[in-house]
Amino acid sequence: MKPEIVRSRADLRAQATAWRKDGHRIGAVPTMGALHEGHLSLVRRAAAECDKVIVTLFVNPKQFNDQNDLQKYPRTEEDDRTLLQEIGPDILYAPDVKEIYPAGFATTISVSGITDSLCGSFRPGHFDGVATVVCKLFLQTGADCAYFGEKDYQQLQVVRRMASDLDIPIDVIGCPTIREADGLAMSSRNRLLSPEGREKAVALPRALVQTAEAISRGANPQDSIEAAIGLLETSGFASVEYLELRGADDLAPITTLDRPARLLAAAKMDDVRLIDNVPVLPGT
Amino acid sequence: MKPEIVRSRADLRAQATAWRKDGHRIGAVPTMGALHEGHLSLVRRAAAECDKVIVTLFVNPKQFNDQNDLQKYPRTEEDDRTLLQEIGPDILYAPDVKEIYPAGFATTISVSGITDSLCGSFRPGHFDGVATVVCKLFLQTGADCAYFGEKDYQQLQVVRRMASDLDIPIDVIGCPTIREADGLAMSSRNRLLSPEGREKAVALPRALVQTAEAISRGANPQDSIEAAIGLLETSGFASVEYLELRGADDLAPITTLDRPARLLAAAKMDDVRLIDNVPVLPGT
Repeated sequence: MKPEIVRSRADLRAQATAWRKDGHRIGAVPTMGALHEGHLSLVRRAAAECDKVIVTLFVNPKQFNDQNDLQKYPRTEEDDRTLLQEIGPDILYAPDVKEIYPAGFATTISVSGITDSLCGSFRPGHFDGVATVVCKLFLQTGADCAYFGEKDYQQLQVVRRMASDLDIPIDVIGCPTIREADGLAMSSRNRLLSPEGREKAVALPRALVQTAEAISRGANPQDSIEAAIGLLETSGFASVEYLELRGADDLAPITTLDRPARLLAAAKMDDVRLIDNVPVLPGT
Repeated sequence: MKPEIVRSRADLRAQATAWRKDGHRIGAVPTMGALHEGHLSLVRRAAAECDKVIVTLFVNPKQFNDQNDLQKYPRTEEDDRTLLQEIGPDILYAPDVKEIYPAGFATTISVSGITDSLCGSFRPGHFDGVATVVCKLFLQTGADCAYFGEKDYQQLQVVRRMASDLDIPIDVIGCPTIREADGLAMSSRNRLLSPEGREKAVALPRALVQTAEAISRGANPQDSIEAAIGLLETSGFASVEYLELRGADDLAPITTLDRPARLLAAAKMDDVRLIDNVPVLPGT
């Protein structure tokens, strides 16, 4: 029953090479597991657009700057596989750490500029870890296209930049954030929230949506953002790491809405770090 | 007449993709031009082992830590093409700087450990530039194998490590150093030497060979190396940047010859930086 579980690079490459020879279009969905509807939406889109689909499941130690965060990251491979069976991707590639980083591994990929701020400021080394593992997964799967959620918006831009800069022949496709009924962006970290924290967390998407609408209608961005940060703090968020308006493509800071933008935030609830972002379009 | 000159990534990829579809094995020979018999030996080997051969010619600004060195690096594309016509590789890929590093380029590949010493100490950023451009050239050519001279021995190990760590499906093949009749390793930089400097430069390979033989026969490595450095300095080399015994694979420092090793040196003659290296085998 699909997906077949593959543990080794050699087995994965053998299968992907055979598919390529037969002219199949291969789609990859890189994940760290603890799958939710957000991931499943990516897998469904890959299944609709590609002949063969590889979901990767690897909790990448190199992208965790905080070892405690790595330890408590949810690992639910059996449940993940069951969820995937309803869609039926061809392969669930779930290698162990030594398969991805064998003894002697010494290479790091860094993307400058777009990683300097936002999550990059608060998670040193995080995007190096992301860029390095995603490059490896792209080349291991040999995929023609790869699907990422816009929920990790800065990550999506880093991956796009890395793949383009290194001439990896793959289309990086960003897909809309999937949300709970109350608007909270789906995230594997949500299951780490207390019931009370989960209720309060809805303030994050609400603040983002309201602020984006206000800025679109012409409100001063900096004033709107300061009000939103205050709202989050009174709504139970212990700390707001950032809430910023950035250019949609390059993530450069912007103070007036003269091009498509993105409002991005990271804040801690119950010691769980949540991130979210929404588009901000001029004159809507 | 071969080689055909290709300037754009798009044209290169279209040709390589067509070749791959037809089942051809593609060999790449990355160069910075100013071709000599050392390069040509790589192209001949690629032609003997592969169905299609791509020679790349790109003077990579990112691997020059010294802008003066970049400016004076010899550029002889017409001569290079004429030399290649005798062998007949299929493509000479000679892109300009903007084709390799378009506006917004922001990605760097770093290999730790083996780049920390030897040339890495004297040329900060050099191996990042090498690893980044070679990764790009590997992915742009889509080659099955790539040929590098052992004359740039540390570079060869960096490229091997990078390609293996990033799972690039390519065989990196190291080929013996080609030497002038008097033993000087062929190098594009040799043409920058004065006639007197060219004569004196032969002291470098002589010192390396004599020292390697002495160490192989059981002489104390450190004493032999100190004597060799003294010999180079009295032979007209202005400065000896390093002359060191290292493990052949990992380039780790070694003080006793308990495994295959390499004796590597860099020294300046006429303000021209020359490098060379020779194998050192235990008990020969």
